[in-house]
Amino acid sequence: MLKVYGDVYSGNCYKLRLLLSQLDIPHVWQHVDILKRETRTDAFLALNPNGKIPLLELDNGECLAESGAILHYLAADTPLVPTERLAHARMLQWMFFEQYSHEPYVAVARYIVRYLGRPADKEETLQQKMAPGYRALDVMEQQLTKEDFFAGGRYTLADIALYAYTHVAGEGGFELQRYPAIRAWLARVQAQPGYVGMD
Amino acid sequence: MLKVYGDVYSGNCYKLRLLLSQLDIPHVWQHVDILKRETRTDAFLALNPNGKIPLLELDNGECLAESGAILHYLAADTPLVPTERLAHARMLQWMFFEQYSHEPYVAVARYIVRYLGRPADKEETLQQKMAPGYRALDVMEQQLTKEDFFAGGRYTLADIALYAYTHVAGEGGFELQRYPAIRAWLARVQAQPGYVGMD
Repeated sequence: MLKVYGDVYSGNCYKLRLLLSQLDIPHVWQHVDILKRETRTDAFLALNPNGKIPLLELDNGECLAESGAILHYLAADTPLVPTERLAHARMLQWMFFEQYSHEPYVAVARYIVRYLGRPADKEETLQQKMAPGYRALDVMEQQLTKEDFFAGGRYTLADIALYAYTHVAGEGGFELQRYPAIRAWLARVQAQPGYVGMD
Repeated sequence: MLKVYGDVYSGNCYKLRLLLSQLDIPHVWQHVDILKRETRTDAFLALNPNGKIPLLELDNGECLAESGAILHYLAADTPLVPTERLAHARMLQWMFFEQYSHEPYVAVARYIVRYLGRPADKEETLQQKMAPGYRALDVMEQQLTKEDFFAGGRYTLADIALYAYTHVAGEGGFELQRYPAIRAWLARVQAQPGYVGMD
């Protein structure tokens, strides 16, 4: 059976929980605690030399890392991955956008506030996350003012990838009330069949 | 004709130059100067609200952003994108790895040294890039000790994505002589048909 190494804090892991629920894929969830540095043990590094979760272990023991790649593997040949060439690339565009221009700010701010308890020595880092985080949300708002979803005119992996940290952006201090189109989209994601929340 | 907005400094843009050469795809290259903030003009932001290059403009005027997504669009249905499900996801794994765990360190260190001239007020930032940059190179070395390429047992988009900033990592102060498997792989990439260098 498929095995996922993940935790309950990480939005990157939650992306997989949401997809596995929506596609009703049988799996075992192996809890890994980042705060206890369980991704840095020799045993875990043998599975993923990059020392990160989530990680997918296949029946044959092979492992696949990176949330976006795991989503793509699990959802291959489902309506969540467009087959049309441009729509497929557009989905990937937003997944790369999420990992490069969104997650390092929106997710890290939430991590500092919610999980580290906003320590004084992280305050400057936290403040540096706000402007680029808001820029990412601005870009999303522009897209969602034009279209209901991010790629191919329908709910795809791009929505799952962006939903994970966006819907809890408030926990990092981002004011989502500024973004009516994002809030309407969050509700559209929550209305998808098989939706499960983060906690 | 396809139009690429890009510059000559950026490894993210070079990925496209390399692919376009290898697939011999006719295109127009529109130079955009980041240092002159040409990605922040109203005209450019209308094309890519995220204000980044490279950007691909299709014949119908639609634009596609994010180097990984553009590579995927251009190389669809070529041997550079594996069709087998796990190999495809493995290629994406390394492309996401590059954008999240490699580029923000290896590329940014090079940018500070080569293009900003290593100013004193960036020295602390530069130093902070070194350890995670070396961790990314260590992970690559492990993979390349086992296999000749990153995904599917052959040259794919993952190799193009990782080659771009790795082969000039020395310009940011990283010592590639520590990595024999990476250096052998760099030579394998340079031996691919249609290879063009960065400068």
